[in-house]
Amino acid sequence: MTGAAAYREFEGLAHRLADCAGEIQRRYFRTPVSVETKSDASPVTIADREAEAAMRDLIAAGYPGHGVLGEEYGSDRVDAEFVWVLDPIDGTKSFITGRPLFVTLIALVHGGRPVLGVIDQSILRERWVGVAGAASVWNGRPIRVRACPRIEDAVLFATSPAMFRAGPENDGFARVQRSVRLPMYGGDCYAYGLLAMGFADLVVEASLQPYDFMALVPVIEGAGGTATDWAGRPLRLDSHGQILAAGDARVAVAARDLLAGPG
Amino acid sequence: MTGAAAYREFEGLAHRLADCAGEIQRRYFRTPVSVETKSDASPVTIADREAEAAMRDLIAAGYPGHGVLGEEYGSDRVDAEFVWVLDPIDGTKSFITGRPLFVTLIALVHGGRPVLGVIDQSILRERWVGVAGAASVWNGRPIRVRACPRIEDAVLFATSPAMFRAGPENDGFARVQRSVRLPMYGGDCYAYGLLAMGFADLVVEASLQPYDFMALVPVIEGAGGTATDWAGRPLRLDSHGQILAAGDARVAVAARDLLAGPG
Repeated sequence: MTGAAAYREFEGLAHRLADCAGEIQRRYFRTPVSVETKSDASPVTIADREAEAAMRDLIAAGYPGHGVLGEEYGSDRVDAEFVWVLDPIDGTKSFITGRPLFVTLIALVHGGRPVLGVIDQSILRERWVGVAGAASVWNGRPIRVRACPRIEDAVLFATSPAMFRAGPENDGFARVQRSVRLPMYGGDCYAYGLLAMGFADLVVEASLQPYDFMALVPVIEGAGGTATDWAGRPLRLDSHGQILAAGDARVAVAARDLLAGPG
Repeated sequence: MTGAAAYREFEGLAHRLADCAGEIQRRYFRTPVSVETKSDASPVTIADREAEAAMRDLIAAGYPGHGVLGEEYGSDRVDAEFVWVLDPIDGTKSFITGRPLFVTLIALVHGGRPVLGVIDQSILRERWVGVAGAASVWNGRPIRVRACPRIEDAVLFATSPAMFRAGPENDGFARVQRSVRLPMYGGDCYAYGLLAMGFADLVVEASLQPYDFMALVPVIEGAGGTATDWAGRPLRLDSHGQILAAGDARVAVAARDLLAGPG
């Protein structure tokens, strides 16, 4: 088996993982959950932990030989041929402020490359699925990025202008932000779903972890877009957290040049 | 009649206005609508225009003597005793990028002060209603701001850090942003609804027009919070667009001091 067919068998489990995380999120959303602050200063709730634990149980039951890397409970056999990469709640800040833009991110990584990705918003019941070699879908319907030949016409998303380190990283983002038609903030990974559907043209972010970005790659590539690091290299488990997603390859090139330097 | 009773008779119309704007928004949301740029550089679509026109028709039919001030079609008899203030789509940028956080804003102004306010999100089917002298509701259920004694613990929303003019305005916002626990972006007026429900503590914005802020006041005040200009003055049709909303009056005071100057 090659391409999509080889990974289709894992899609059922990916859906079950998203279903079970969503059920837990809906139970806690807009209830007064207590919020702890982790060592990296990011917030975490019982909903994050329960959702990841439940997903890990399902993976262990279905594919005990697979590895798992999750935001809350770390890594387990990440040298296995297949590794599931989980973010039970991407956008915990949105979750705790009652804003239904957080998502569950689920990726299956094969030989270091993400081959299956799910972005799921459990309150709005929106689910994006991408499988290497196949067309990505939103709630079962094929989706496609839109054309945007010029960066001057682009809609850009970034979760926050504060996510970039002072210096070249922040300067690079600022150059992109000044070049686009419409910079938008507060996206979390929901923004990548919008890009895959043709409602945005660029997402530029930094300081992301593998569980934040691995799921996005198959969804965006399967919709005709690109998702790489800022230098245009494929995203891997050991990528450094600078993400550049674009619907149109011409905008990706323009953004890469702006991120790299003033010219 | 005094207080809420005096304004209850207008609530039915306010709901019908929100219903009819919502129907139009749902018809155009995530379809390829063309986007024009207005003289103030903000985007507008056929959905904004149709929704406002339909609401104006309903007001004219129900209360022909009332005034109307709307974002898209300007003002009509704004010296009348009662004036409806309409923003058919607050957050047009969210609307055109497929993000269901835009809202319809409807205010009834009596003698210069907002006495009835509706914030409606038509895709998520969330509706906040506030009437002077009564408890605010979300989808019919009473809501309440939360306590937050210290600004260091506050969750802050602002649509974009780029909405503040360079100089004292931007410096004031930056002082508030650095003082809070969690600054969040990309709210549009949905953020004021979250504040009224107790999921956020502060919204600080600038460059707003009366149709952006009048509807928020009864919703937030009726939930136990405050919504004023940056100097703590009541919001009126001729206020200058700097808005400070807080759930807890102690955080409002602390934010006002930070906005006013470095100490």
